[in-house]
Amino acid sequence: MNRRSFLKNSALGGTAAAASSLAAPLYAQGNRTLTMVTTWPRGFAGLADAADRAAANINALTEGSLTVDVKHAGELVGAFEVFDAVTAGQADMYHGADYYFVNQHPAFAFYTGVPFGMTATEHNNWYYHGGGMEMHHALGEIFGLKSFMAGNTGAQSGGWFTKEITGPEDFQGLKFRMPGLGGRALGHMGVSVQNLPGGEIYQALASGAIDGTEWVGPWSDEKVGFQEITKFYYTAGFHEPSAGLSLATNLEVFDSLTQQQKAAIEIGAAAADHWNLHQYLMNNGSALQRLASSGVKVLEFPDSVWDAFGAASMQVYEEFMGDDIFKETYDAYVESMAASSGWISKSDATYRNQRDRVLGSRT
Amino acid sequence: MNRRSFLKNSALGGTAAAASSLAAPLYAQGNRTLTMVTTWPRGFAGLADAADRAAANINALTEGSLTVDVKHAGELVGAFEVFDAVTAGQADMYHGADYYFVNQHPAFAFYTGVPFGMTATEHNNWYYHGGGMEMHHALGEIFGLKSFMAGNTGAQSGGWFTKEITGPEDFQGLKFRMPGLGGRALGHMGVSVQNLPGGEIYQALASGAIDGTEWVGPWSDEKVGFQEITKFYYTAGFHEPSAGLSLATNLEVFDSLTQQQKAAIEIGAAAADHWNLHQYLMNNGSALQRLASSGVKVLEFPDSVWDAFGAASMQVYEEFMGDDIFKETYDAYVESMAASSGWISKSDATYRNQRDRVLGSRT
Repeated sequence: MNRRSFLKNSALGGTAAAASSLAAPLYAQGNRTLTMVTTWPRGFAGLADAADRAAANINALTEGSLTVDVKHAGELVGAFEVFDAVTAGQADMYHGADYYFVNQHPAFAFYTGVPFGMTATEHNNWYYHGGGMEMHHALGEIFGLKSFMAGNTGAQSGGWFTKEITGPEDFQGLKFRMPGLGGRALGHMGVSVQNLPGGEIYQALASGAIDGTEWVGPWSDEKVGFQEITKFYYTAGFHEPSAGLSLATNLEVFDSLTQQQKAAIEIGAAAADHWNLHQYLMNNGSALQRLASSGVKVLEFPDSVWDAFGAASMQVYEEFMGDDIFKETYDAYVESMAASSGWISKSDATYRNQRDRVLGSRT
Repeated sequence: MNRRSFLKNSALGGTAAAASSLAAPLYAQGNRTLTMVTTWPRGFAGLADAADRAAANINALTEGSLTVDVKHAGELVGAFEVFDAVTAGQADMYHGADYYFVNQHPAFAFYTGVPFGMTATEHNNWYYHGGGMEMHHALGEIFGLKSFMAGNTGAQSGGWFTKEITGPEDFQGLKFRMPGLGGRALGHMGVSVQNLPGGEIYQALASGAIDGTEWVGPWSDEKVGFQEITKFYYTAGFHEPSAGLSLATNLEVFDSLTQQQKAAIEIGAAAADHWNLHQYLMNNGSALQRLASSGVKVLEFPDSVWDAFGAASMQVYEEFMGDDIFKETYDAYVESMAASSGWISKSDATYRNQRDRVLGSRT
């Protein structure tokens, strides 16, 4: 199967058939239950909430014609097995972070977040109005998926370290948890990169199996309890300035649905996407205040570290440019970022600076 | 009718009955057409699009059980008559900017945008996760409305002037179009404030009836053609750092709907809200580039003007604090802004600054 260019694939109309052997007509009548598997442990703040919200939206919108039955990580398959479960037809849909599946295709990284990439706002500009969703569909189709954005954590924290970071040399030999392309970039800085699912990080950090980790942001991080283990917290990170979460339905299953059911999945996912980003942003502020007042040091990486992050990230992009799909996606992504970031700087950012200056301590 | 505190109203369970005389059971069977009136001329970029998108979402999600029939400004009632049309039962729902209705109640301003208030991101944090939606519902209920956010233009431009602004004294005697509380603030700076609907501004500016105007942002402004009249354009403004658009349904009509139809309105509106904000942000960047290259001067107000905007805005808030609903809403709004803005500064804003520094001209 040629997975190197979806333009070519699209031209042929050729997609890998999903492994589900159930024929579409079987689905067409009556009420159906769709099994959703997720990459999140049940109850995980924000992440499991996004999956649950998407499912609840679809259920409310289909009034019993569809019932999405959510099986969180480990309940039917493991966190990292959801992609194979859905493409193989063992489950109907997954909710997860697509950058967990960069080994299936590196371009999946663009639908979660990439180093030195777009913020959540810019990411959504691209996704909904700059061709991003269409590219997501085209990539998913190759694997027998219909993919939609259905959640976003916003910019993720730089992460937790067991000591203060003073320069790029501090990363040499560090055992650090970071998935996706950001993790690969850290590899170029001498880090021993670990890709652990959410449920296993606390123990690894507590036992010293890893020296540090990024996870999500103050609200989620506080709930996991990293502040019980270490006090060095970097708020801004280079690796996931947006972290989109995807709802991907087995394509044969999706194609067998009615127009109303398809609309319920698409619109229900978009509404969950909107709801979840703001859930994170609303909760992160107060969580950060609690962490700081409990003794956590809220820090920023020095410029020398940001420079090293930048160089390492560009090195990672170069490694994948031989893949046509990756390059097409990267080019479209960077073009969209350039188009939408200028106005945001001249309006939103200028306004925020002036508001903070004029109102001072009020905000 | 006591419109001064919705806490008191809520405690009594008392709301002004909508004037519609149609009893609920009459609606309960079969397919229904809901008439939506809007404050936007048909085809107006972004604004009419948000209304059309919300209607299309509801139609797709209800598969014929509801058909939303959109009557844009002037097709059934005028732009500023939609509130009365829906509360009186002449139309079923309106899509519009709630700050057009500050004469009905000043607290409606918080559901569009207020001077020195929240950005679109912060606004959505409050609306979906900080109690904003519940306060919107409570305010709407007093007038017989069920209100949801269903669009957002993002931060609005400072506006178009016929000369460069060098200090607050330049506002003295200026005839300027600005609705809502921002307009009132300009009044305190000596401006003769005009509140014109979108369709009438171009002519007023071209004829010299007004000396300047804010409208929306580069994309919408360019389509209206203000750059044909004047070349002085201020990107950041104090008056509407977010500009939410509302979909408000007559409460008796809403209550008569099925659970599925109610979900279609709520989730369809939220998805339109998400879609529309990013439509604006994606298009504003390239429009600003076109305007700049066509000779428009892209400017920022000097600090002295921002200081005067700030003082005038605080004066406006003080004028309404005797109204309990206004004060309750203001207090909740300001508390939410303080809670969510700190994290955004330490994550998203820090990241953007570092990305621009490290990547330089790439973005």
